[in-house]
Amino acid sequence: MKTVLTYSGGLDSTVLLYHLRSQGNTIRCLGIDYGQRHRRELDAAAIICRDLEIEYRIADLSAVRPLLAGSALTDDVAVPEGHYAAESMKLTIVPNRNMIMLSVAIGWALSLKYDAVAYAAHAGDHPIYPDCRPEFVEAMDKAASLCDWHRIHIVRPFITMTKADIVRLGAGLRVPFERTWSCYKGGPLHCGRCGTCVERREAFQIARLRDPTTYEA
Amino acid sequence: MKTVLTYSGGLDSTVLLYHLRSQGNTIRCLGIDYGQRHRRELDAAAIICRDLEIEYRIADLSAVRPLLAGSALTDDVAVPEGHYAAESMKLTIVPNRNMIMLSVAIGWALSLKYDAVAYAAHAGDHPIYPDCRPEFVEAMDKAASLCDWHRIHIVRPFITMTKADIVRLGAGLRVPFERTWSCYKGGPLHCGRCGTCVERREAFQIARLRDPTTYEA
Repeated sequence: MKTVLTYSGGLDSTVLLYHLRSQGNTIRCLGIDYGQRHRRELDAAAIICRDLEIEYRIADLSAVRPLLAGSALTDDVAVPEGHYAAESMKLTIVPNRNMIMLSVAIGWALSLKYDAVAYAAHAGDHPIYPDCRPEFVEAMDKAASLCDWHRIHIVRPFITMTKADIVRLGAGLRVPFERTWSCYKGGPLHCGRCGTCVERREAFQIARLRDPTTYEA
Repeated sequence: MKTVLTYSGGLDSTVLLYHLRSQGNTIRCLGIDYGQRHRRELDAAAIICRDLEIEYRIADLSAVRPLLAGSALTDDVAVPEGHYAAESMKLTIVPNRNMIMLSVAIGWALSLKYDAVAYAAHAGDHPIYPDCRPEFVEAMDKAASLCDWHRIHIVRPFITMTKADIVRLGAGLRVPFERTWSCYKGGPLHCGRCGTCVERREAFQIARLRDPTTYEA
């Protein structure tokens, strides 16, 4: 299948990239620049794609950022620390980020006459991020099937998997985890304390696999 | 209701603006700059909003344009002439334009804690533009209801109306039709020959109302 992957350079979407590649798909990757403070994820994505010889494009949506207020990921609000499931992590929600990202990816897939857009939403995201829930992705798949005469499918193989499941799958595919970037703070090293760092650490522990990430704390 | 209107400065969305306003809604308008050649529509929208004292913001998506190839509206392809229903008008489709526009409008509505996004798709659009069909808008309404914990509705009162019906409604609301901009060519006057000009002229004829537009041909 010919697939556009919405690709952040993070752990989940990097495992999805290796997974799709192992199944013989033709892949192009789309990153989104929405003025996030953890811009290191864009660099991580570029390096991983370069090594795999896969096209990587960035959709620059930073001009839209002022319309999408209220997130610690883009605004001058401190990134909350602690476990992902905590109420405070709701601060990291960029309003409608995933629908915007998917809609641009679908547009690119249509212009390429590709078959699918792949999206690494997983079960662990659901309690915090409404736009990672299966019912949201199903509605987007329906919309994707109707927005054009050419049919685009939304592929979401991780939708019922935990992050530990994804780490296990990635280990089998020899994913270079140390090159992926998760931390929302975007400092020189993973901070080890923000929600996404806590979740990343925990996933390796649950999967009983060595975590190659260097954390600050 | 508090509503973000996806507003092009064209005839349909201007009538929708007046219609929503007459019903006592609080409205903010969102235009999309996707590198279209008929940029005059953005100016038309700005002038109409200024006179109504309604906030008008432009989401600058021109950086995404290179990903969305294959349209006479943005590329160096001649804008086809003749009736809208003709096969050639499919050239004017910007891949997934409406889903991208709606997703940004939903993001803005969420950040404002508004109730709805309004969209002027009408029955005459359906044969050409798959993303103006009722089933597409229903799928987007479903996705909008799931993308966040705050519920956004997609309001589409014109979805079963013809353009002539919209002209009639607008005449009753004293819409300044002469200030709206439809032509895809974006010259100094409406060309009178492209699909959207042909459709505009025809709507006034069917509605038996005087067309105040000055056409080149």
